[in-house]
Amino acid sequence: MVQLVLVRHGESTANFDNTYTGWSDVDLTAHGRAQAHVAGQLIAASGLQFTAVHTSMLRRAIMTAYIIQDELHANWLPITKSWRLNERHYGALRGLNKDKTRALFGRQQVAQWRRSYTAEPPHLARAHHQRRYAHWPTSIIPTGESLADASARLLPYWNDAVVPQLRAGHNQLIVAHGSTLRALIKHLEGIADTDIDGVEVGNAAPIVYTLNQRLAITDKVTLAEK
Amino acid sequence: MVQLVLVRHGESTANFDNTYTGWSDVDLTAHGRAQAHVAGQLIAASGLQFTAVHTSMLRRAIMTAYIIQDELHANWLPITKSWRLNERHYGALRGLNKDKTRALFGRQQVAQWRRSYTAEPPHLARAHHQRRYAHWPTSIIPTGESLADASARLLPYWNDAVVPQLRAGHNQLIVAHGSTLRALIKHLEGIADTDIDGVEVGNAAPIVYTLNQRLAITDKVTLAEK
Repeated sequence: MVQLVLVRHGESTANFDNTYTGWSDVDLTAHGRAQAHVAGQLIAASGLQFTAVHTSMLRRAIMTAYIIQDELHANWLPITKSWRLNERHYGALRGLNKDKTRALFGRQQVAQWRRSYTAEPPHLARAHHQRRYAHWPTSIIPTGESLADASARLLPYWNDAVVPQLRAGHNQLIVAHGSTLRALIKHLEGIADTDIDGVEVGNAAPIVYTLNQRLAITDKVTLAEK
Repeated sequence: MVQLVLVRHGESTANFDNTYTGWSDVDLTAHGRAQAHVAGQLIAASGLQFTAVHTSMLRRAIMTAYIIQDELHANWLPITKSWRLNERHYGALRGLNKDKTRALFGRQQVAQWRRSYTAEPPHLARAHHQRRYAHWPTSIIPTGESLADASARLLPYWNDAVVPQLRAGHNQLIVAHGSTLRALIKHLEGIADTDIDGVEVGNAAPIVYTLNQRLAITDKVTLAEK
Protein backbone atom coordinates (compact mmCIF):
# COMPACT_ATOMS: atom_id res chain seq x y z
CA MET A 1 0.00 0.00 0.00
CA VAL A 2 1.29 3.40 -0.97
CA GLN A 3 -0.22 6.85 -1.05
CA LEU A 4 -0.34 9.30 -3.91
CA VAL A 5 -1.60 12.82 -3.22
CA LEU A 6 -2.69 15.13 -6.05
CA VAL A 7 -3.18 18.83 -5.40
CA ARG A 8 -4.24 21.50 -7.87
CA HIS A 9 -2.66 24.91 -7.16
CA GLY A 10 -4.58 27.48 -5.09
CA GLU A 11 -6.66 30.20 -6.76
CA SER A 12 -4.60 32.15 -9.30
CA THR A 13 -5.15 35.68 -10.55
CA ALA A 14 -6.35 34.08 -13.81
CA ASN A 15 -8.85 31.82 -12.02
CA PHE A 16 -10.12 34.97 -10.35
CA ASP A 17 -10.39 36.82 -13.70
CA ASN A 18 -11.92 33.77 -15.40
CA THR A 19 -9.36 33.75 -18.23
CA TYR A 20 -7.65 30.88 -20.05
CA THR A 21 -4.20 30.61 -18.56
CA GLY A 22 -2.37 27.49 -19.63
CA TRP A 23 1.34 28.24 -19.74
CA SER A 24 1.03 31.91 -18.71
CA ASP A 25 2.95 32.24 -15.47
CA VAL A 26 0.36 33.91 -13.26
CA ASP A 27 0.66 34.29 -9.50
CA LEU A 28 -1.53 32.96 -6.69
CA THR A 29 -4.03 35.38 -5.18
CA ALA A 30 -3.91 35.99 -1.41
CA HIS A 31 -6.90 33.63 -1.21
CA GLY A 32 -4.96 31.07 -3.27
CA ARG A 33 -2.03 31.22 -0.84
CA ALA A 34 -4.41 30.77 2.09
CA GLN A 35 -5.95 27.76 0.30
CA ALA A 36 -2.47 26.25 -0.12
CA HIS A 37 -1.80 26.64 3.61
CA VAL A 38 -5.09 24.86 4.39
CA ALA A 39 -4.20 22.07 1.94
CA GLY A 40 -0.86 21.63 3.70
CA GLN A 41 -2.53 21.58 7.12
CA LEU A 42 -5.03 18.95 5.93
CA ILE A 43 -2.25 16.73 4.59
CA ALA A 44 -0.21 17.23 7.79
CA ALA A 45 -3.25 16.34 9.93
CA SER A 46 -3.68 13.12 7.93
CA GLY A 47 -0.19 12.08 9.03
CA LEU A 48 0.98 11.50 5.45
CA GLN A 49 4.71 11.71 4.74
CA PHE A 50 6.38 11.75 1.35
CA THR A 51 9.78 11.06 -0.13
CA ALA A 52 9.44 13.49 -3.04
CA VAL A 53 7.37 16.34 -4.42
CA HIS A 54 6.64 16.81 -8.13
CA THR A 55 5.38 20.03 -9.67
CA SER A 56 5.29 22.01 -12.91
CA MET A 57 7.51 24.85 -14.09
CA LEU A 58 4.72 27.34 -13.38
CA ARG A 59 4.82 29.62 -10.40
CA ARG A 60 1.26 29.03 -9.15
CA ALA A 61 1.93 25.30 -8.72
CA ILE A 62 5.48 25.75 -7.39
CA MET A 63 4.34 28.28 -4.76
CA THR A 64 1.49 25.97 -3.72
CA ALA A 65 3.99 23.10 -3.37
CA TYR A 66 6.37 25.26 -1.29
CA ILE A 67 3.55 26.33 1.04
CA ILE A 68 2.42 22.72 1.50
CA GLN A 69 6.00 21.59 2.22
CA ASP A 70 6.28 24.37 4.79
CA GLU A 71 3.07 23.24 6.52
CA LEU A 72 4.43 19.67 6.51
CA HIS A 73 7.74 20.93 8.04
CA ALA A 74 9.30 19.16 5.07
CA ASN A 75 10.92 22.02 3.15
CA TRP A 76 13.89 19.69 2.83
CA LEU A 77 12.03 17.19 0.60
CA PRO A 78 13.40 16.98 -2.92
CA ILE A 79 11.19 18.80 -5.41
CA THR A 80 11.25 18.32 -9.18
CA LYS A 81 9.74 20.89 -11.54
CA SER A 82 8.85 19.46 -14.93
CA TRP A 83 7.30 21.11 -17.99
CA ARG A 84 5.42 17.83 -18.45
CA LEU A 85 3.31 18.72 -15.39
CA ASN A 86 2.50 22.19 -16.78
CA GLU A 87 -1.13 23.07 -17.41
CA ARG A 88 -2.73 22.13 -20.75
CA HIS A 89 -1.50 24.69 -23.30
CA TYR A 90 -4.47 26.78 -24.44
CA GLY A 91 -2.70 28.10 -27.57
CA ALA A 92 -4.17 31.33 -28.87
CA LEU A 93 -6.89 31.30 -26.17
CA ARG A 94 -4.25 32.10 -23.58
CA GLY A 95 -5.08 35.31 -21.71
CA LEU A 96 -8.61 35.53 -23.14
CA ASN A 97 -11.53 35.93 -20.79
CA LYS A 98 -13.86 32.94 -21.05
CA ASP A 99 -16.92 35.11 -21.77
CA LYS A 100 -15.00 36.97 -24.50
CA THR A 101 -13.91 33.65 -25.98
CA ARG A 102 -17.55 32.57 -26.25
CA ALA A 103 -18.39 35.88 -27.94
CA LEU A 104 -15.47 35.48 -30.40
CA PHE A 105 -15.70 31.79 -31.27
CA GLY A 106 -19.27 30.88 -30.37
CA ARG A 107 -20.64 29.01 -27.40
CA GLN A 108 -20.62 25.66 -29.20
CA GLN A 109 -16.96 25.83 -30.28
CA VAL A 110 -15.90 26.82 -26.77
CA ALA A 111 -17.92 24.00 -25.23
CA GLN A 112 -16.25 21.64 -27.72
CA TRP A 113 -12.77 22.81 -26.68
CA ARG A 114 -13.76 22.32 -23.07
CA ARG A 115 -15.64 19.04 -23.33
CA SER A 116 -13.95 17.08 -26.08
CA TYR A 117 -10.93 15.01 -25.15
CA THR A 118 -9.25 15.57 -28.51
CA ALA A 119 -10.33 19.08 -29.65
CA GLU A 120 -7.35 21.44 -29.96
CA PRO A 121 -7.56 25.20 -29.44
CA PRO A 122 -6.11 27.47 -32.16
CA HIS A 123 -2.34 27.11 -31.82
CA LEU A 124 0.19 29.86 -31.24
CA ALA A 125 2.28 30.64 -34.32
CA ARG A 126 5.43 29.43 -32.57
CA ALA A 127 6.60 27.94 -29.28
CA HIS A 128 7.49 30.12 -26.30
CA HIS A 129 11.02 31.39 -26.44
CA GLN A 130 11.29 31.47 -22.69
CA ARG A 131 14.64 30.67 -21.10
CA ARG A 132 13.02 28.10 -18.85
CA TYR A 133 12.09 25.89 -21.83
CA ALA A 134 15.33 26.47 -23.71
CA HIS A 135 16.76 23.06 -22.77
CA TRP A 136 14.23 21.21 -24.91
CA PRO A 137 13.83 21.04 -28.69
CA THR A 138 11.12 23.49 -29.70
CA SER A 139 9.49 20.63 -31.61
CA ILE A 140 8.34 19.03 -28.35
CA ILE A 141 7.23 22.24 -26.61
CA PRO A 142 3.49 22.66 -27.31
CA THR A 143 1.84 25.63 -29.02
CA GLY A 144 -1.70 24.47 -28.20
CA GLU A 145 -3.07 21.20 -26.79
CA SER A 146 -6.15 19.05 -26.55
CA LEU A 147 -6.50 17.26 -23.22
CA ALA A 148 -5.29 14.15 -25.08
CA ASP A 149 -2.13 16.02 -26.13
CA ALA A 150 -1.52 17.16 -22.56
CA SER A 151 -1.97 13.58 -21.36
CA ALA A 152 0.53 12.29 -23.95
CA ARG A 153 3.30 14.60 -22.73
CA LEU A 154 2.40 14.13 -19.07
CA LEU A 155 2.55 10.33 -19.02
CA PRO A 156 6.30 9.95 -19.69
CA TYR A 157 6.94 11.94 -16.50
CA TRP A 158 4.37 9.91 -14.57
CA ASN A 159 5.79 6.60 -15.76
CA ASP A 160 9.48 7.48 -15.36
CA ALA A 161 9.59 9.74 -12.29
CA VAL A 162 6.56 8.83 -10.18
CA VAL A 163 5.59 5.19 -10.84
CA PRO A 164 8.97 3.67 -9.82
CA GLN A 165 8.81 5.59 -6.51
CA LEU A 166 5.27 4.40 -5.82
CA ARG A 167 6.19 0.81 -6.69
CA ALA A 168 9.05 1.08 -4.19
CA GLY A 169 6.47 2.00 -1.54
CA HIS A 170 7.34 5.70 -1.31
CA ASN A 171 4.42 8.12 -0.95
CA GLN A 172 4.50 10.87 -3.59
CA LEU A 173 2.97 14.36 -3.75
CA ILE A 174 2.10 15.95 -7.10
CA VAL A 175 1.12 19.63 -7.19
CA ALA A 176 -0.11 20.57 -10.64
CA HIS A 177 -3.00 22.03 -12.62
CA GLY A 178 -6.69 21.43 -13.34
CA SER A 179 -6.29 19.87 -16.76
CA THR A 180 -3.08 17.91 -16.20
CA LEU A 181 -4.58 16.45 -13.02
CA ARG A 182 -7.76 15.55 -14.93
CA ALA A 183 -5.58 13.78 -17.50
CA LEU A 184 -3.74 11.92 -14.74
CA ILE A 185 -6.96 10.99 -12.94
CA LYS A 186 -8.36 9.72 -16.26
CA HIS A 187 -5.28 7.53 -16.66
CA LEU A 188 -5.34 6.30 -13.04
CA GLU A 189 -9.06 5.55 -12.90
CA GLY A 190 -9.46 4.38 -16.51
CA ILE A 191 -12.12 7.01 -17.26
CA ALA A 192 -13.50 6.97 -20.84
CA ASP A 193 -12.68 9.85 -23.23
CA THR A 194 -16.36 10.77 -23.29
CA ASP A 195 -16.68 10.93 -19.49
CA ILE A 196 -13.65 13.03 -18.59
CA ASP A 197 -15.44 16.38 -18.96
CA GLY A 198 -17.45 15.46 -15.85
CA VAL A 199 -14.31 15.36 -13.68
CA GLU A 200 -13.57 18.60 -11.81
CA VAL A 201 -10.49 19.18 -9.66
CA GLY A 202 -10.94 21.96 -7.09
CA ASN A 203 -8.20 24.44 -6.19
CA ALA A 204 -5.99 23.15 -3.37
CA ALA A 205 -8.27 20.22 -2.47
CA PRO A 206 -5.88 17.30 -1.80
CA ILE A 207 -6.94 14.01 -3.40
CA VAL A 208 -5.43 11.03 -1.57
CA TYR A 209 -5.21 7.78 -3.50
CA THR A 210 -4.25 4.56 -1.77
CA LEU A 211 -2.72 2.18 -4.30
CA ASN A 212 -1.72 -1.45 -4.11
CA GLN A 213 1.49 -2.98 -5.42
CA ARG A 214 0.15 -3.05 -8.99
CA LEU A 215 -0.91 0.63 -8.49
CA ALA A 216 -4.60 -0.28 -8.60
CA ILE A 217 -6.72 2.10 -6.53
CA THR A 218 -7.96 0.69 -3.24
CA ASP A 219 -9.17 3.99 -1.78
CA LYS A 220 -9.70 7.61 -2.80
CA VAL A 221 -10.45 10.46 -0.41
CA THR A 222 -10.60 14.21 -0.99
CA LEU A 223 -9.43 16.06 2.13
CA ALA A 224 -11.59 19.00 3.21
CA GLU A 225 -12.05 21.17 6.28
CA LYS A 226 -14.59 19.79 8.73
CA MET B 1 33.78 33.80 -17.55
CA VAL B 2 31.10 32.45 -15.26
CA GLN B 3 29.43 33.76 -12.14
CA LEU B 4 29.02 32.09 -8.78
CA VAL B 5 26.80 33.76 -6.19
CA LEU B 6 26.98 32.80 -2.51
CA VAL B 7 24.25 33.90 -0.11
CA ARG B 8 24.01 33.19 3.60
CA HIS B 9 20.42 32.81 4.80
CA GLY B 10 18.56 35.81 6.27
CA GLU B 11 18.43 36.39 10.03
CA SER B 12 17.12 33.32 11.85
CA THR B 13 15.42 33.13 15.22
CA ALA B 14 18.68 31.65 16.54
CA ASN B 15 20.79 34.53 15.14
CA PHE B 16 18.37 36.82 16.95
CA ASP B 17 18.70 34.86 20.21
CA ASN B 18 22.50 34.57 19.79
CA THR B 19 22.49 30.77 20.20
CA TYR B 20 24.54 28.07 18.48
CA THR B 21 22.30 26.55 15.87
CA GLY B 22 24.11 24.25 13.48
CA TRP B 23 21.71 21.56 12.38
CA SER B 24 18.72 22.76 14.44
CA ASP B 25 16.00 23.62 11.94
CA VAL B 26 15.11 27.14 13.02
CA ASP B 27 12.96 29.54 11.02
CA LEU B 28 13.76 32.94 9.53
CA THR B 29 12.59 35.97 11.48
CA ALA B 30 10.36 38.52 9.70
CA HIS B 31 13.51 40.63 9.35
CA GLY B 32 15.31 37.62 7.85
CA ARG B 33 12.59 37.17 5.24
CA ALA B 34 12.79 40.87 4.38
CA GLN B 35 16.58 40.53 4.04
CA ALA B 36 16.08 37.59 1.64
CA HIS B 37 13.74 39.70 -0.52
CA VAL B 38 16.36 42.47 -0.66
CA ALA B 39 19.05 39.91 -1.60
CA GLY B 40 16.83 38.66 -4.43
CA GLN B 41 16.18 42.21 -5.63
CA LEU B 42 19.90 43.01 -5.61
CA ILE B 43 20.70 39.89 -7.64
CA ALA B 44 17.81 40.63 -10.04
CA ALA B 45 19.03 44.23 -10.47
CA SER B 46 22.51 42.93 -11.34
CA GLY B 47 20.96 41.05 -14.28
CA LEU B 48 22.44 37.71 -13.19
CA GLN B 49 20.70 34.55 -14.35
CA PHE B 50 21.38 31.01 -13.16
CA THR B 51 20.81 27.48 -14.36
CA ALA B 52 20.55 25.94 -10.89
CA VAL B 53 20.19 26.71 -7.20
CA HIS B 54 21.93 24.74 -4.45
CA THR B 55 20.95 24.87 -0.79
CA SER B 56 21.06 22.87 2.42
CA MET B 57 18.39 20.68 4.01
CA LEU B 58 17.71 23.38 6.60
CA ARG B 59 14.63 25.54 6.43
CA ARG B 60 16.32 28.93 6.96
CA ALA B 61 18.48 28.42 3.86
CA ILE B 62 15.70 26.81 1.77
CA MET B 63 13.25 29.63 2.54
CA THR B 64 15.91 32.22 1.67
CA ALA B 65 16.53 30.42 -1.63
CA TYR B 66 12.79 30.30 -2.41
CA ILE B 67 12.39 34.01 -1.72
CA ILE B 68 15.38 34.87 -3.92
CA GLN B 69 14.03 32.67 -6.74
CA ASP B 70 10.69 34.44 -6.44
CA GLU B 71 12.36 37.87 -6.71
CA LEU B 72 14.25 36.59 -9.78
CA HIS B 73 10.96 35.34 -11.30
CA ALA B 74 12.78 32.04 -11.53
CA ASN B 75 10.78 29.80 -9.23
CA TRP B 76 11.09 27.21 -12.00
CA LEU B 77 14.87 26.85 -11.61
CA PRO B 78 15.94 23.42 -10.40
CA ILE B 79 16.91 23.46 -6.73
CA THR B 80 18.95 20.81 -4.94
CA LYS B 81 18.94 20.49 -1.15
CA SER B 82 22.00 18.70 0.20
CA TRP B 83 23.01 17.87 3.78
CA ARG B 84 26.57 18.64 2.64
CA LEU B 85 25.59 22.34 2.50
CA ASN B 86 24.14 22.26 6.03
CA GLU B 87 25.67 24.53 8.65
CA ARG B 88 28.68 23.33 10.64
CA HIS B 89 27.37 20.91 13.26
CA TYR B 90 27.91 22.43 16.71
CA GLY B 91 27.46 19.13 18.54
CA ALA B 92 26.48 19.55 22.19
CA LEU B 93 26.67 23.35 21.90
CA ARG B 94 23.53 23.30 19.76
CA GLY B 95 20.77 25.41 21.28
CA LEU B 96 23.08 27.01 23.86
CA ASN B 97 23.21 30.78 24.13
CA LYS B 98 26.69 32.05 23.31
CA ASP B 99 27.02 33.96 26.63
CA LYS B 100 25.93 30.87 28.56
CA THR B 101 28.47 28.79 26.62
CA ARG B 102 31.22 31.15 27.70
CA ALA B 103 30.05 30.89 31.32
CA LEU B 104 29.97 27.07 31.09
CA PHE B 105 33.16 26.33 29.18
CA GLY B 106 35.24 29.46 29.68
CA ARG B 107 35.93 32.34 27.34
CA GLN B 108 39.18 30.83 26.07
CA GLN B 109 37.68 27.45 25.12
CA VAL B 110 34.79 29.14 23.29
CA ALA B 111 37.18 31.44 21.45
CA GLN B 112 39.17 28.34 20.45
CA TRP B 113 36.05 26.61 19.06
CA ARG B 114 35.29 29.74 17.14
CA ARG B 115 38.75 30.69 15.91
CA SER B 116 40.56 27.42 15.36
CA TYR B 117 40.08 25.70 12.01
CA THR B 118 40.36 22.23 13.54
CA ALA B 119 38.88 22.51 17.07
CA GLU B 120 35.80 20.32 17.50
CA PRO B 121 32.94 21.13 19.87
CA PRO B 122 31.81 18.40 22.31
CA HIS B 123 29.96 15.86 20.13
CA LEU B 124 26.40 14.65 20.51
CA ALA B 125 26.18 11.09 21.86
CA ARG B 126 24.64 9.90 18.58
CA ALA B 127 23.60 11.19 15.16
CA HIS B 128 20.20 12.74 14.55
CA HIS B 129 17.54 10.19 13.88
CA GLN B 130 15.62 12.58 11.71
CA ARG B 131 13.75 11.18 8.72
CA ARG B 132 15.41 13.68 6.42
CA TYR B 133 18.85 12.14 7.02
CA ALA B 134 17.64 8.55 7.00
CA HIS B 135 18.93 7.89 3.47
CA TRP B 136 22.57 8.12 4.57
CA PRO B 137 24.63 5.80 6.78
CA THR B 138 24.71 7.26 10.30
CA SER B 139 28.50 6.91 10.17
CA ILE B 140 28.77 9.85 7.74
CA ILE B 141 26.20 12.10 9.47
CA PRO B 142 28.14 14.36 11.86
CA THR B 143 27.62 14.63 15.63
CA GLY B 144 29.88 17.67 15.98
CA GLU B 145 32.32 19.36 13.57
CA SER B 146 35.34 21.59 13.38
CA LEU B 147 35.30 23.98 10.44
CA ALA B 148 37.78 21.59 8.79
CA ASP B 149 35.29 18.71 9.22
CA ALA B 150 32.50 20.82 7.69
CA SER B 151 34.78 21.68 4.78
CA ALA B 152 35.63 18.00 4.20
CA ARG B 153 31.96 16.99 3.84
CA LEU B 154 31.09 20.13 1.85
CA LEU B 155 33.74 19.75 -0.85
CA PRO B 156 32.39 16.53 -2.45
CA TYR B 157 29.15 18.41 -3.20
CA TRP B 158 31.06 21.43 -4.49
CA ASN B 159 33.27 19.32 -6.73
CA ASP B 160 30.56 16.99 -8.06
CA ALA B 161 27.46 19.18 -8.30
CA VAL B 162 28.70 22.76 -8.72
CA VAL B 163 32.13 22.72 -10.40
CA PRO B 164 31.03 20.85 -13.57
CA GLN B 165 28.20 23.38 -14.06
CA LEU B 166 30.56 26.34 -13.63
CA ARG B 167 33.09 24.77 -16.01
CA ALA B 168 30.28 24.44 -18.55
CA GLY B 169 29.71 28.20 -18.25
CA HIS B 170 26.49 28.01 -16.23
CA ASN B 171 26.08 30.57 -13.45
CA GLN B 172 25.24 28.94 -10.12
CA LEU B 173 23.57 30.21 -6.94
CA ILE B 174 24.42 28.67 -3.55
CA VAL B 175 22.29 29.62 -0.53
CA ALA B 176 23.82 28.22 2.63
CA HIS B 177 25.17 29.08 6.08
CA GLY B 178 27.81 31.22 7.77
CA SER B 179 30.34 28.46 8.46
CA THR B 180 29.84 26.37 5.33
CA LEU B 181 30.22 29.51 3.22
CA ARG B 182 33.38 30.44 5.14
CA ALA B 183 34.71 26.96 4.38
CA LEU B 184 33.84 27.37 0.71
CA ILE B 185 35.35 30.86 0.52
CA LYS B 186 38.51 29.49 2.18
CA HIS B 187 38.70 26.82 -0.51
CA LEU B 188 37.96 29.24 -3.37
CA GLU B 189 40.34 31.97 -2.25
CA GLY B 190 43.05 29.71 -0.82
CA ILE B 191 42.86 31.33 2.62
CA ALA B 192 45.23 29.88 5.25
CA ASP B 193 43.83 27.88 8.20
CA THR B 194 45.08 30.58 10.55
CA ASP B 195 43.37 33.43 8.66
CA ILE B 196 39.88 32.01 8.18
CA ASP B 197 38.55 33.31 11.51
CA GLY B 198 38.82 36.82 10.07
CA VAL B 199 36.29 36.04 7.32
CA GLU B 200 32.70 37.03 8.13
CA VAL B 201 29.69 36.32 5.88
CA GLY B 202 26.75 38.62 6.54
CA ASN B 203 23.14 37.44 6.48
CA ALA B 204 21.63 37.65 2.97
CA ALA B 205 24.50 39.70 1.51
CA PRO B 206 25.09 38.19 -1.97
CA ILE B 207 28.76 37.62 -2.82
CA VAL B 208 29.29 37.53 -6.59
CA TYR B 209 32.43 35.79 -7.82
CA THR B 210 33.48 36.02 -11.44
CA LEU B 211 35.58 32.98 -12.34
CA ASN B 212 37.61 32.11 -15.39
CA GLN B 213 37.66 28.76 -17.19
CA ARG B 214 40.03 27.28 -14.58
CA LEU B 215 37.68 28.68 -11.88
CA ALA B 216 40.30 31.20 -10.74
CA ILE B 217 38.70 34.36 -9.29
CA THR B 218 38.84 37.39 -11.57
CA ASP B 219 36.41 39.53 -9.58
CA LYS B 220 34.54 39.51 -6.26
CA VAL B 221 31.75 41.91 -5.33
CA THR B 222 29.38 41.91 -2.38
CA LEU B 223 26.01 43.34 -3.40
CA ALA B 224 24.47 45.88 -1.04
CA GLU B 225 21.72 48.48 -1.07
CA LYS B 226 22.90 51.91 -2.22
